[in-house]
Formats: sequence, C-alpha cells, structure tokens
Amino acid sequence: MEAKFKLVIEYDGTAYHGWQRQAADRSIQAEIEKALAVMTRQEVSLAASGRTDAGVHALGQVAHFTCETAITSEEFLKGLNSLLPDDIVIKSCEKMPADFHARYDARRKTYRYRILNRPVPTAVDKRFVWHVRKKLDLDAMQTAAAYVVGEHDFKAFEGTGSPRSSTLRTIYKAQLSAASAGHLVFEIEGDGFLRYMVRNIVGTLVEVGRGKLTSGDFKTILESRDREQAGATAPPQGLFLVKVDY
Amino acid sequence: MEAKFKLVIEYDGTAYHGWQRQAADRSIQAEIEKALAVMTRQEVSLAASGRTDAGVHALGQVAHFTCETAITSEEFLKGLNSLLPDDIVIKSCEKMPADFHARYDARRKTYRYRILNRPVPTAVDKRFVWHVRKKLDLDAMQTAAAYVVGEHDFKAFEGTGSPRSSTLRTIYKAQLSAASAGHLVFEIEGDGFLRYMVRNIVGTLVEVGRGKLTSGDFKTILESRDREQAGATAPPQGLFLVKVDY
Repeated sequence: MEAKFKLVIEYDGTAYHGWQRQAADRSIQAEIEKALAVMTRQEVSLAASGRTDAGVHALGQVAHFTCETAITSEEFLKGLNSLLPDDIVIKSCEKMPADFHARYDARRKTYRYRILNRPVPTAVDKRFVWHVRKKLDLDAMQTAAAYVVGEHDFKAFEGTGSPRSSTLRTIYKAQLSAASAGHLVFEIEGDGFLRYMVRNIVGTLVEVGRGKLTSGDFKTILESRDREQAGATAPPQGLFLVKVDY
Repeated sequence: MEAKFKLVIEYDGTAYHGWQRQAADRSIQAEIEKALAVMTRQEVSLAASGRTDAGVHALGQVAHFTCETAITSEEFLKGLNSLLPDDIVIKSCEKMPADFHARYDARRKTYRYRILNRPVPTAVDKRFVWHVRKKLDLDAMQTAAAYVVGEHDFKAFEGTGSPRSSTLRTIYKAQLSAASAGHLVFEIEGDGFLRYMVRNIVGTLVEVGRGKLTSGDFKTILESRDREQAGATAPPQGLFLVKVDY
C-alpha cells in the first residue's frame, strides 16, 4: 500500500553541500534517500520544506516521501537513524494523509542565527557561530531588526541569481538578543524566506552594529528593494533552520 | 627579565587525551607549550589549575607560565592563537605577580555537565552532551543534587586509584535545570573537586532520574564514603570546566 511519511530532521551542515541532492557533492537529501533505498529497496525521493545552503544547519527541517511499504513510522525512525551518518538525525517520523506536502503546506518557518561577538574566537562552538571581533552596538541592531517585522518586499535581501515570482514575505518576529557572554542570537519567524534572505539581513544588521550603517539606513535599504544596497551575506555556519509549522 | 603570565583557555577536548602532557598522546598542555616554545625559543612549562580528563572540555581553564621574555601579554594572546589548532583558544593573557600560582591559588571552580534527554540523539551537539534516551525524573534528581551542597567527605564519588590526602570538599552550588527542550544542565561550584567527582555525581544523579535509586539513596551513598555504592561515571563529553576563581 502506498503511504506518505513526514520526517523532522536535525543536521550539522558543516560537511555537506546543503540540503539538495547534487551530482558530485555530499548533500543531506542524498544521504537520507540512500538510507531510504536500503530500507525500502526502492528509489524514494524526498521533498523538503525548502533547501538549506551549504554549511547551514537544521534543528527541525521537514521533508516527506511516499512509497509502497509495510514499514511503520517507528521502524523508519529507528532504521534511518542507524543507517545515517551521525551528523544527520531523524527526530520523528509520522504517517501523513496523501495530500500532505512538506513544501506547499509549510505556513511558517523559524530560523536562528548565532553570532559570537568577542575579541577571541571560540574553540568549542566554531562550527555554529559567526565570529565578529569588533564590539557590536546591540541597541542599534535591535532597532534595525524591528523594521523587518510585517509584510515587506524583501528584494533588497534576496540572493542574486535566484529570482522568485514574488518577493513579498511576512515576518512575524525578528528578535536579536544577548544570550551568555558575547553570544548574540537572532531569531526570525516568517511565512517564507527568499534565498540568502536571513543571511543578508544578518550581514546588514552587523554593519549597523559596527557603525557602518545606521538603523535608519537599514530601513532605507529594506525599502529600496535593491540588492546592491544591502550588506554582505553572513557566513552559513551561524544559521539554523529551527522549525517549520504546518 | 623573568615574567609570569596567566592564561585563560577554552578548548574542545574531543581530540585530546586530556589536559596533561603525555609521552604518546595529544594533550592540551603539550599543544600550548609547543606554541610557547615557538614564540619564546625556550622550553616553557605550564601549570594549570588542575587536570581535565580525556574528552573533557573547558571554557575557562587557567594556567600560568614563567619565562625570560620581552614579549607582552597582548603579543602572547595573538601569537598563541595564531599558532594553536582551532580547538584550543587563549581567551586572555595577563601578566601576574611572581607569587601567583594557577593551582595553589585557585579558590573556587565551576563545572557544567550537559545531558540530552530525549529518545533520539543530536546531530549538532554530539561532541558536547551525554545522550540519555529514557525520560529522567528531574524533580528527584534536583532533590538529590541539593544534598551535595555544603562541606562533605566526597570519597564515595572519587575515582578509584587516585586517592588524595583529604577527600573533604565544600560545594557552594549544585543546580540541575532544564534548558531548552530535552537539554538538562548541571552546574556545580566548589572549592575543589576530586578526580572524576563531577562525572560520578552526574552518573549517580542519572540513576536517580532513571528510578534505579531514590534521592534518599543518593544521600546514603554520599554519606557512605564508599565508591562501590555510587553509580557509573558519566561520559567525558558532557563536562566543561567553566571557570576558576582566584
């Protein structure tokens, strides 16, 4: 009998060329599809809520697959985790109605970006933070971050060469906070994100924090809809796809 | 002119056989001494606040060294960090009076132990947590943890084959808390710790959490001063030496 399953997936993206299957490079998708092929003896293809780029991590990526199988969701959970490399973990597996789609049904996504702001780098967290030496102005960054909340055309923060039909997105929450000493955490929740959008927002926020832009400049850039105005793309290793809501 | 310097050191202990220099294995001490030798063209030996065991991490280990040099503390900080592998970071370097001693002057140490308590393992944090699948009883563990606060003879929690002249230690704080989903954090602060003491306390607390021991049993074990009574030693990768106070 054909059945549809939803996977919630955690991964350390350091060793991968992103979510999406590629001819030459290692990808999260290919690793899980390989494990699914071993379990089901079929070619099974995964559809995710969206791609994550090379080096980006996930605490709660969601993907679905369909196959003819008598294997239960509990068996998939155990079997996949025993077959997968230890930087990919299936957190849950759940049987779904036939019309569920991991990408089209996603209503809300949450990303987290971690910055380590201190003169010296970190020995324990280096795979998971962007290290910024110069003391950042947290107040100015928080003022700027608040401007992205609401419905906006985010064209200024879209990666070049990846145009979408609509660049309008709604952001429900965008919050920058100081966790433990030197650790800044940016959490952003929205109905969808353009390619590189979170990393471009963070890159531009950091220019505000460095004093190269004011929070007013940040607002002007957002409103300009012009990618040339925004700051550099923040590096991938600070970014986590935290969860996808349906 | 002879000068004395204090280093505060962060390290990911995964790849090392502990702090202490050893003939055959990689150690944190040997890596830093090698870098010091390059900078000073002398054999410089480091004295730490205490050893950490194989696989244990540090956010704030402290060590001192003495040498004839015109190198400033700022130059040591930069130079060492450029020479060291990226899983060892010098967080600060400070010139000290000749009578300072990293071990004998240490008045208080803080350790943290991280447990991931959920059915599935973690992809991103696996170097830094003890993964315990079975749901732990946090209340019972917290009751038990409170018993270690105060001055006690910790012989029951001392590693075998490593006797000290006195096994009396004072614990100022021992607190187990639930951080984010499934993440338990145990913080313990005391005037000193016996070998494996934190990991033996945590191993025994987890047996309380699993329902194999009651919190009353934990108290009886502590009072027994008998190592045979206590639970298994918790694995090294969850343990961090957080800071040393002078």
